This record gives sequence, C-alpha cells and structure tokens, in this order.
Amino acid sequence: MFALYSPLLDFKLINTMSSQKNKNGFYAQSGGVTAVINASAYGVLKKARENPDCINKIFAGENGILGALQENLIDTSLISDEVITGLKTTPAGAFGSCRYKLGGLKENIEKYQRIIEVFEAHNIGYFFYNGGGDSQDTTKNLARFVQEQDIDIKCIGIPKTIDNDLPETDCCPGFGSVAKYVATSVLEASLDVSSMAKTSTKVFILEVMGRHAGWIASSGGLAQKTKDDPPHIILFPEIPLQIDKFIKKVQETVDRLGFCSIVVSEGVKQENGDFITDNKNKDAFGHTQLGGAAPLIARLIEKKLDLKNHWAVSDYLQRSARHLASKTDVNQAQAVGEHAVELGLSGKTSIMTTIKRITNQPYTWGLGNVDLDKVANHEKMLPQDYISSDGFGITQKCKDYLIPLIEGEDYPEYRQGIPNYTVLKRILAKKKTDNNFTI
Amino acid sequence: MFALYSPLLDFKLINTMSSQKNKNGFYAQSGGVTAVINASAYGVLKKARENPDCINKIFAGENGILGALQENLIDTSLISDEVITGLKTTPAGAFGSCRYKLGGLKENIEKYQRIIEVFEAHNIGYFFYNGGGDSQDTTKNLARFVQEQDIDIKCIGIPKTIDNDLPETDCCPGFGSVAKYVATSVLEASLDVSSMAKTSTKVFILEVMGRHAGWIASSGGLAQKTKDDPPHIILFPEIPLQIDKFIKKVQETVDRLGFCSIVVSEGVKQENGDFITDNKNKDAFGHTQLGGAAPLIARLIEKKLDLKNHWAVSDYLQRSARHLASKTDVNQAQAVGEHAVELGLSGKTSIMTTIKRITNQPYTWGLGNVDLDKVANHEKMLPQDYISSDGFGITQKCKDYLIPLIEGEDYPEYRQGIPNYTVLKRILAKKKTDNNFTI
Repeated sequence: MFALYSPLLDFKLINTMSSQKNKNGFYAQSGGVTAVINASAYGVLKKARENPDCINKIFAGENGILGALQENLIDTSLISDEVITGLKTTPAGAFGSCRYKLGGLKENIEKYQRIIEVFEAHNIGYFFYNGGGDSQDTTKNLARFVQEQDIDIKCIGIPKTIDNDLPETDCCPGFGSVAKYVATSVLEASLDVSSMAKTSTKVFILEVMGRHAGWIASSGGLAQKTKDDPPHIILFPEIPLQIDKFIKKVQETVDRLGFCSIVVSEGVKQENGDFITDNKNKDAFGHTQLGGAAPLIARLIEKKLDLKNHWAVSDYLQRSARHLASKTDVNQAQAVGEHAVELGLSGKTSIMTTIKRITNQPYTWGLGNVDLDKVANHEKMLPQDYISSDGFGITQKCKDYLIPLIEGEDYPEYRQGIPNYTVLKRILAKKKTDNNFTI
Repeated sequence: MFALYSPLLDFKLINTMSSQKNKNGFYAQSGGVTAVINASAYGVLKKARENPDCINKIFAGENGILGALQENLIDTSLISDEVITGLKTTPAGAFGSCRYKLGGLKENIEKYQRIIEVFEAHNIGYFFYNGGGDSQDTTKNLARFVQEQDIDIKCIGIPKTIDNDLPETDCCPGFGSVAKYVATSVLEASLDVSSMAKTSTKVFILEVMGRHAGWIASSGGLAQKTKDDPPHIILFPEIPLQIDKFIKKVQETVDRLGFCSIVVSEGVKQENGDFITDNKNKDAFGHTQLGGAAPLIARLIEKKLDLKNHWAVSDYLQRSARHLASKTDVNQAQAVGEHAVELGLSGKTSIMTTIKRITNQPYTWGLGNVDLDKVANHEKMLPQDYISSDGFGITQKCKDYLIPLIEGEDYPEYRQGIPNYTVLKRILAKKKTDNNFTI
C-alpha cells in the first residue's frame, strides 16, 4: 500500500566535491509548524550522520532563520541518536520556527551578508531551509547571493506547509496529517450530532485552516463515503459565500436528514471578496471582533433558521495532532529531508526537493527536485474540478488525489496516557562574531 | 498495568428468577453521547447474547427513552455479531440518544404508564438505561413505579457522562477518553505555540466542556510534567475568574517562558457568579453573542495585554474522539454494560453499576453497584484539594486520580485513512400499540 520512496535521483556520494568535505551544514525550520516538520529534521540529521566523511556537523538555527542572523546555532552533534530519532514522532518545531521574512535581496542585502558572515565563521557549506513559499524565496535569494559572491554554499529548500499550496511538488509534507485530522474529526463529530439531532443540535460547524487555498477544507470531504454522509456542506475560500443559497442548503439538509454538518475554511469570503471575518462587515454578520468563521456561520444560521447549532474551531490542534499523523505524510516528510542532504552533498544548489506521484492505485511516489525559481512566489490553488458543481463539496477526482495522502497511521509512544514527545535541549555553539543582530 | 475487572458481585445465573426467563430487555442511550457509550451497548448486547436461556432479545430504544415512548424499538437480534462487535470501537450513540427529561413520577405519570404499556406489549422484563444524572433519576422513578404496580421489570442504570459528575462511582465511562483527548491536545498545541512564540503567537487558549464541574478542565493539567510545562493556567468553573490576578499571571508567564498556554472551561464564571459567556455581561467582556469562553478570554488578553493569541474550541470533537480513546475507559464502559445485564438477570433492580478503584499503582479496579436513590440528583464536583492553591492548576492528588483513567490506547481500524466506524442499520420491531406518543 505504502511505497517506500525510490529516489529518482541517482545519489552518488562519490560526486561530493572535495572542496565541501568537512564543511558543516545549517538547517532551520520556518513559518507555521506542522505535525511532521520534525520528521524532516530527523531526515536531514540522520542522512548527515550517515555521511560523516562528506559533511561534518549540522547546526540548527534556533527559531528559524533568526538563528543564523543572531548566531544562535544549536549544535546538533551534541544531541543523542535517541533524541534525534524521537523527532520523527514529535510535532511542532523542535528547534524553534519563526515568522520572519528576509525579503528581497536588493533591499535586504545586509541580512544576507550577515547570514554569510555567520556561516563562514562556522564553516557552513550547506543551507537546508524547511518551509513554505516565503522560505523557498529566501533560499532562492541566498543561493543567488552566494553564487554572485562566488561563495560555495549549497542552498536546498525542503518543502513544508499544511496549506499544500507549494507548486511543483505533488503535495507538501504537513498537509496529509492535517487532512487526516480534519477528515477524522468531521466524521466523529458528525456521528455525535446525528445521534442527538432528534432532540438536540441540528447543525454542526467545524472551522479549519487554509486562508487562501481550500486544500484543508477539501479534506473534510473525505469523511463522506456516500452521497448523504457528512459533511453536507464545505465552504471553500475559493467560492464566495452566497448566503441565500447556503441557508437554503442547510435547511434542505436538516429537513431531509435531520441534521447538517458543515466544514468552513477560515478564509471563506463574502461575495464582495472580503473575508467574512473582516471587522468592517459588522452589519451583514454582526459583531465580528471575536474572530472565527465558525461562530459567524453559526450566528447566521441562528438568525436565518433558528436551528440549534454547535461549532468547533480546531486551530493549532489540527496542525500539531501528531497522535493522528498520516504515515504517508511522516514518510514523505522524512524523505524530503534526507533527499535534501543527498542533493546538497551531490553538489546541487538552488533547488527544492519535491514529491512525485508515480501511480494512484496502488499509491507509489518518488522524490525529485525543482529549481527554486519555479517555486518561490507561486501558490497552488485547489483546482476547479476538485470542487463539486454546486460549490459545496469535492469531486471524485479530488478524493482520488487526497486519499493516499492521509493513509496509514504512525502512532507515537505514550507514557501515562499522553504521547511521550521528545524534548530537545538546545545547546548553542559558542558565538564567533561580534555582531548583535536585532530584529 | 490494566487490570481486567474482577466483578465484586458474585454473579450466578442460577439465581435468575424463573418468572423472568424468556423475557426481553430494553436498552437505551441518554443525554450527551461519548466516545465509548457504544462500548457499553456492546457490553449489554454481548452479555445478553451469551445468556439466551435467561434473556430473549434486547430492544434498543431509537433516540433514547423516546424509543420506548414512541414504540420505536430497534430489534437488535437482527444485528450481526460483527456489527455488534464494531460498536466497541465506534463513537457517539449508534441507536440514537436524546435530551428528553421524563421528569418526576407524580407529574408525569402518563409517560411512565406509556413506557410500561410498550414494555408489556413487547414482553420486556429488563430496563437498561445508559446515561448521566437525569437518566439515573428516570431509572429510579421507573423502578419505583413498577414496584408500586407490582410489575416485574428490573431497572438498572449504566453510568455514562463525560462530565464525570456522577456520585458513588469512582469515575464515569466517557470521561477518561475526553480527558485523554484534552491532555493530548493541550500538549500538542502548546508545543506548536512554544516553537513559534519568538515571532508569533504568545498565548494559546483551549476551551473545553464541563459547564458545572471542572473535571474535564482539570485533565488539561495532565500535559504538565514539570512546573513550567504547559498548561500554565487552567480556568475552572469552580473558581470565579479574578481578571486582574489572571492577567498578571498571563503576563508573568509570557515574560518568563515566552508563551502562555491556557485551558478554559466553558463554564467559567465571573466573580458575581454569572457565566462569563452570559449575554447580559456586555460591558465587562464586550459583545458575547457569538458565544465561546475561549474567544472571550482571547479578547480580554488582547485588550489588557495586547499579546498575539490563538484560541481553539474543541466542542463535540473532544467527546467523539474515539480515535484517541482511553483503553481504560473503553474497558470500563464495556464492563458496566455487561455487569448491568448480570445484575438484572440476578434479580436486582433500582441500582446503577459502578466502578470501584481498588489500587492506584498499579491501577486495579472492580465493579459494584449502588442504590439509585444515592445517585439521582447528586453532582460530584472537583474536590477542593484537586485544585492548586493559586486556583490555576491541579495538585498531585488530582493527577494520581486522573492518570489511570487516560492510560492505554485502543485504536479503531482505519480504511482509506479514516476510522472505519460501524454503521448500524436500525430495523424497528413491528408496533403493537395504537398510542402515537408525540413529544
């Protein structure tokens, strides 16, 4: 069922350029964390440890790229194999992540210079950056900068985003686990509602992430096996909310099935293009300062239909739920990390590792890489033919794409009833530069 | 680690009164459903099937006690063993539950009469009612009614409530799984927040159920292994919110640790005793019509401290999360169901099955029973010495009580990436009475 990945690239360590031998590597986690980004870190560190003749040690940036700018470098050579292995089953960013945009090369040249200053001080010849679109842009800029300066640092991007919106890769590590969480949660909560609907709640609303692309919202549709199964309505960010049509569908569903289960993206928009959660839209939706698309939709249903409803906002729970991670996702996260090291050691630069779907049934996949120019600043939206014609559901084509990504379970160990996640002690390398970079 | 239960009652089928032989049983699910109430149903049906000489078939009420009132009786003899076994790993109420109070015997005598009319028409000699405090009250009233009328129907209560507020039993089936979900979710989301706090969210708030008793809120505290671990603050329904003290604690925590993780009960109250979510309290907390304690607390923190925050409301997700059920909880839910049948067949009536804690380490437990007079209309609140002296956390005594209840995993089977829950086809027995009871 789950293909072990078969790297498309013929990796030969023998190709490693002699100039890079005994260089160190830098790895950092960037942007919103996921249930499996640490599995990518595990892949990087594992592959590097397996090749001590080609690469010396890996420094991990504390809090992402800030670690490079502030010379806060976690010396991973001081971390035991046991702890490194524990990363594979630990959610969130063990080294700390950040929301910090380096920005364009020209306007921010001193930041790139600062990074190189730190890298040269620590003999770093490899830059592995694990993140979404913005992070790949940073990697691309750094690659261009070192090429222009004739500095030998290989810059490799590692894909990560729950939003699944990176182009050129079949999917993004992090997404499959969120999708599994959302599909499972919709299924479970809908069973709950359906068993009580006769005398209690008639409408349930689950709010999910994905501000611009409807990938996460679409995954809720995987709970639906037959036509009348929940969820009955998905509100995508791609489809402006037509209130009358929506309300009619809710009422019709409750009349016919006794209850209605709804998935709403946090990014759902009004017909004028504004988010329904925008504060300025007080009149149409009432007071919105408390935020949250789900409570807004709940209130709309109350006002228009007077139906008892409940709503949930899973927020960070959905992207940190390592206890329910997709095995496919975990394996792919690890593989793109390992492959990034292989590519770097092979002398490649300015590329991002990618996942390629080989066959759908059985699902097999392999690894590839793509030039960062093709990745940075492109968002992959949910294709139109993944959304059903009424705009409230997903098509079979969408299911065929999604199902393999959520397949397989990969349970963490438990201790005293809760997952026994790895806690990593961050031991910083001694600083070698005087510069005190402040953000 | 997990003791198989050893019934305290010496169950002898030989005691079965001859008059009851070949009688049918009635089983119904009442009130808010849980991740494991179907495991109790499994226990009832399994034990009855094992004793065909003592009890004929079990009818399940469709939508709880409404099934009896409306003569909508699901004939479980038509359900395969395979489907019955599937109930053990399926959340929510497979037969339908209801929020419908029968109320006092005197004022509602015609409802009790109606139930007996249906039961006599279908030769029902056993009444198994699976629910919380209100449901146990119903069972008690029905038991008194049949005794007064000299009708031979054994009435046995089966405990169920996520709120853990039934007295006389060490814990309530349903609670352990919610507690495991909440503790795991707090752990995971807090790892997420802590890894991003440097440049992003500083405060995370998770809202949990438990309107009157703080049992569920307290379970969030199980994520905390050492003093500075999250959650840093728990807001219990038992402790009125002192805004200044709370805000000070949030700020102090963010200053010291970089982030603050908060669990808030939906039932947290203001100092005047009103729920913080009460609509009338507009001025202190802003516009509250959207409901939800978490967004209110988030807004309070924004106004007072201007700290970036995120909030989650797990709502039905927490009580339907069978994918993360506690094995202890599943076993106990099944056991109280089985034991109810044993007790009924032994000729007992007007009792509820209970769980008794025998030892804490290793955790061993057994079964018992209690007179319904002692159960009905009593709520078991979180003891004062389970809450830490500052009112924001739990004590070791509380942890010692809680940990065994969340221990062990009991995963459902998965198909195409999501749990393969059992769908039960409800085949109703032919009606034998003319009465069309309407609610």
